[in-house]
Amino acid sequence: MNIQKIIIASPMVKELEKHIEHYNLDKEIRYITEDALTEEDLEWADALCGFQLRKDTDYSKVKWVHSLGAGVDGFLYDQNWNENVLLTRTVCSFGQRIGEYCLSYMLRDTQAHQTFAAQQGEKVWKEFSPVLLSEKTAVIYGTGEIGRRLAEILSGFGMKVYGISLSGKQKAPFNQVAAIDSHFSFIKEADYVINTLPLTEKTADLFDKRLFDQTSNIGFINAGRGKSVAEADLLAALEKEQVRFAVLDVFHEEPLPASHPFWEHPAITITPHISAVTTAKEAADCFVDTLKRVEAGQDLENKVDIQKGY
Amino acid sequence: MNIQKIIIASPMVKELEKHIEHYNLDKEIRYITEDALTEEDLEWADALCGFQLRKDTDYSKVKWVHSLGAGVDGFLYDQNWNENVLLTRTVCSFGQRIGEYCLSYMLRDTQAHQTFAAQQGEKVWKEFSPVLLSEKTAVIYGTGEIGRRLAEILSGFGMKVYGISLSGKQKAPFNQVAAIDSHFSFIKEADYVINTLPLTEKTADLFDKRLFDQTSNIGFINAGRGKSVAEADLLAALEKEQVRFAVLDVFHEEPLPASHPFWEHPAITITPHISAVTTAKEAADCFVDTLKRVEAGQDLENKVDIQKGY
Repeated sequence: MNIQKIIIASPMVKELEKHIEHYNLDKEIRYITEDALTEEDLEWADALCGFQLRKDTDYSKVKWVHSLGAGVDGFLYDQNWNENVLLTRTVCSFGQRIGEYCLSYMLRDTQAHQTFAAQQGEKVWKEFSPVLLSEKTAVIYGTGEIGRRLAEILSGFGMKVYGISLSGKQKAPFNQVAAIDSHFSFIKEADYVINTLPLTEKTADLFDKRLFDQTSNIGFINAGRGKSVAEADLLAALEKEQVRFAVLDVFHEEPLPASHPFWEHPAITITPHISAVTTAKEAADCFVDTLKRVEAGQDLENKVDIQKGY
Repeated sequence: MNIQKIIIASPMVKELEKHIEHYNLDKEIRYITEDALTEEDLEWADALCGFQLRKDTDYSKVKWVHSLGAGVDGFLYDQNWNENVLLTRTVCSFGQRIGEYCLSYMLRDTQAHQTFAAQQGEKVWKEFSPVLLSEKTAVIYGTGEIGRRLAEILSGFGMKVYGISLSGKQKAPFNQVAAIDSHFSFIKEADYVINTLPLTEKTADLFDKRLFDQTSNIGFINAGRGKSVAEADLLAALEKEQVRFAVLDVFHEEPLPASHPFWEHPAITITPHISAVTTAKEAADCFVDTLKRVEAGQDLENKVDIQKGY
């Protein structure tokens, strides 16, 4: 594919420009903010590189769209996509970032940070032994690059780690993988359930009453997409102690509205969609690498399967 | 060595008995609480297995003493030891336990748990990206079993990890090891400084003004012994931002007295000496394993070097 004219549309366009200019690409590039994107830009360009663009953006005018994020639901979910247009996404340190995010909250739990902090607040010296991660079982939804890296990290601590994917295909380092819509018993064993799935028609509202009814006292971490969780069902599951605590990085509506009950729930930890932020340098490197492969007609590991939606 | 009569003296003597009885040892064993230990017991016994016994306990009456803890300063520090008496200590999952303890507080820091919790308290949605551990450098004091396991864990996340030991002998997986009393520059690079050293004449008050004067903005974790830290110097170092925060599991006096300034210091986290608690099962397994080796005259990895004090 011959790509000569490129639009980079992003809130962090200045930083992206700095990193991309390092490569001295022999291309015409327009660096703009997202809201500055016009019809004329799209008519002009061969390729568009962006993340959260206006809903009515007509992507079919370009040959190639590259997502500056790992998720592409902003392009595909609830929208039609012209399959003649190549869609790629950013793949970089997301697995490691989400891995450390999830691990940090599991260790906060096993090491009883909150209990010891409460004891310190009351000057209470009361000994008890934290449990080792090797005594715990995790179920990870999503066995792609991110889920697999998380599984590697947790397995390294001797945890039992199950995976859930669309296909149910077995993959190391998961102890076992099951398909999302099969009857699997892992979930009953789980101490921690972690969502890393992309948002697609199949994963919308996946974490609902039916699913939480099978869990008992779990720590639930959502580092995937907010719309995969039926929020009212999660609140009910916390009430019924099917879920012991929830750590949520993503929500139906972001920023989370001030009136939302999650904010003040004692068993919910809220982070502002930061578990896998792309740095400008990583985004630039991934974009340039993908550009070279697109032009050379090479295999693209980060090509989005439009039907699957990720 | 022939061992027939054994005293097990511990606050968790009931649990120890349960686990040791599983082995059906052909021995005479007296299970007692620590304060019930008498002169007559010591006259009677070949071996004594205990942890925090009365200061005036005369260990020279038995052939072998086995410490139910990893640390043996309770037997050796500020005391004389009859070198005809074999001293062994418990070696089990301490490395893993202290590893997870330390990692949990480093991840609390890199993942900004406290900042996000404060934002949640005010319903503030403010994005910033947590840093990866691979961008951080740790200096671990102690390159024995515990320090090495911690170093393995941290290296697995791509951290740069330096070690400090008495000998300064190079050891994997440390990037470099220096001797405690040499001039080394690592400490100036450190984001985290972790103490895992035993208490000996050489490590008492090791973390003092002179040492903290070389650090800048570090997270300091003490999972070794309280008396290795000059407590007033640590408070001054926090004041001067040489230390950004401290996580302390051990103290000069335990339980930490209610009047101690550490309790209310906003940058100090206190845990009640729990980073490496021996479970009764692990202690029993280690004791029985050591007993068999002692009787068979085999090499003892957990034999204490009385001169070194660990």
